[in-house]
Amino acid sequence: MTSQENRRFVLTRHMDAGPVEPCVELRREPVRQPGPGDVLTRVLMISVDPANRGWASATPPSYSPGVQVGDTMRAITLDEVLVSNHPDFAPGDIVHGMSGWQDFAVAPGEALTRVSGGGRLSHHISVYGLSGLTAWIGLLEVGQPKAGETVVVSAAAGSVGSLVGQIAKARGCRVIGSAGSDEKCRWLVDELGFDGAVNYRAGPVRPELRKLCPDGIDVYFDNVGGDMLQAALLLSNTHARIVCCGVISRWDESQPNESPKGIPGLIAMKSLKLEGFIVFEHLARRDQITAGLVELVESGKLTVREDIIEGLENAPAALGALFAGENFGKRLVRVAAPTGDRA
Amino acid sequence: MTSQENRRFVLTRHMDAGPVEPCVELRREPVRQPGPGDVLTRVLMISVDPANRGWASATPPSYSPGVQVGDTMRAITLDEVLVSNHPDFAPGDIVHGMSGWQDFAVAPGEALTRVSGGGRLSHHISVYGLSGLTAWIGLLEVGQPKAGETVVVSAAAGSVGSLVGQIAKARGCRVIGSAGSDEKCRWLVDELGFDGAVNYRAGPVRPELRKLCPDGIDVYFDNVGGDMLQAALLLSNTHARIVCCGVISRWDESQPNESPKGIPGLIAMKSLKLEGFIVFEHLARRDQITAGLVELVESGKLTVREDIIEGLENAPAALGALFAGENFGKRLVRVAAPTGDRA
Repeated sequence: MTSQENRRFVLTRHMDAGPVEPCVELRREPVRQPGPGDVLTRVLMISVDPANRGWASATPPSYSPGVQVGDTMRAITLDEVLVSNHPDFAPGDIVHGMSGWQDFAVAPGEALTRVSGGGRLSHHISVYGLSGLTAWIGLLEVGQPKAGETVVVSAAAGSVGSLVGQIAKARGCRVIGSAGSDEKCRWLVDELGFDGAVNYRAGPVRPELRKLCPDGIDVYFDNVGGDMLQAALLLSNTHARIVCCGVISRWDESQPNESPKGIPGLIAMKSLKLEGFIVFEHLARRDQITAGLVELVESGKLTVREDIIEGLENAPAALGALFAGENFGKRLVRVAAPTGDRA
Repeated sequence: MTSQENRRFVLTRHMDAGPVEPCVELRREPVRQPGPGDVLTRVLMISVDPANRGWASATPPSYSPGVQVGDTMRAITLDEVLVSNHPDFAPGDIVHGMSGWQDFAVAPGEALTRVSGGGRLSHHISVYGLSGLTAWIGLLEVGQPKAGETVVVSAAAGSVGSLVGQIAKARGCRVIGSAGSDEKCRWLVDELGFDGAVNYRAGPVRPELRKLCPDGIDVYFDNVGGDMLQAALLLSNTHARIVCCGVISRWDESQPNESPKGIPGLIAMKSLKLEGFIVFEHLARRDQITAGLVELVESGKLTVREDIIEGLENAPAALGALFAGENFGKRLVRVAAPTGDRA
């Protein structure tokens, strides 16, 4: 392996606002050798997530140590084991990793997990990856929807939102989504079975949302903040739960934007719960949650749409465009095909 | 009883902003007679609560039907039974009621509850009244503090805040309060045993709060919103719980004021929980919670300070001045002394 070259993107400045490309630099170096207990992997696919920008920002979220200037840009990956100095792994194994934006990675075996369950390889970085875990935990454990309740999800055509809505439908809820184009809204209703969808770019969102939620909102899964969160707060029923998952529309600013009005008054008066969660804290139950997701996929209740960008060199642009809402379903970058028989 | 006169304050316009006095009118009428199943009571004491204004506003909280123009101004009261047409009550009984701002009231027996436990009469409308229930449920059930954690409470010299801080101390927490004068702050530390207090009128609150909370904040019991909530959000640790109890500083406005910045970003990144609650939904467990409070009072762990205004005619001014922070401890209006032997 020593003769092979590794391409890796290193952070050259913190990624707090604006385009991603100027914040990273592609370096070419020889592939590193694995030490005792280490595993050398080839990166097959890279997950492109809003959180990537947060990790690389000057003010990373408190659960994360942050990516420092000079570090490899951090991202969740799906890898194939090439050389293993760890008893739990053998060449050809497909593993979940945090290899980041590069072709090859060396990691201690403890940092890797073998994928569980079959199906398409890419599903292990979309529906059986962090998007699926995030949707499942955020919706079912934080939001706790009951059959017959109205669930609203924003960025509903995105990787997490599209799963949230479908899981809520499978649990017997009425589901409304918001998305940034009429095409996405049609897809939500016609293909995914949502009960309604609102294009937030077509006009003020609150009157539309009110029409679509005649019985008010019981669970709002928030991926965007801003106007959608404001509308959801105002249309919430007593005891509604608001799952604060991400803040795509608010990341790209050096100052936090204006929050929704009426906080804490609306929370106190309507007895609301607004709650964030850290998906990494739930990894111990990953196999159990994956089994629940596999069941939904295999029974046809969960349609998975992937938005695959080809080539490591396109990772920076793929991340930047995520914040403009370019993606349709789970966005990932395909870096290499596995050498084994898995496809 | 027919010869006696009842004085009652009726709502003449909704109480959305500004002084309370112009919104009510004192009427003098003959005392009503109790019908079948009804109980005639004499109002002994009236609880003066921030929520009173919300109930009488044009936009009452969703858990409340609201006080209509022409209705008796609503308030929680402690009453003595004079005439009972209900098998559960007899003349001389002391009961919790919702008789509002008047001398005498007629209510169905089902709307009354006999006070449980002994002690001072006034304690049944302060520490064993809704203030104590609110502090107990909000702190222990919503906030769920653990021994060793840092608990911050605003309006800490008020009826609920002063109990929240002391209950948290009794549970082994480090407790910091905020209040609107140096005198109140000294009382919190010297008399109630708080670990620190900040006078929010003396300057910017966040740097002071940071000094007093070197390990960050784990539970913030919010009674005020605004700058205190902003500071608490920024100083919160991962997984902190923010109990949204009231919004004294934000009631007195026709428009909701500016919310703290960074919502939902801070909630998502720090995995926070902001939660409101409706104390009336927990009344079924009232006796059990009162027993817990009685134990704290009788063991000397809970000091109760009451701010007693004499005379029904002073109820409107007593409520208005509550929003200026005039009260020190639980504010109540004494309307009459009981005819029985209870004092």
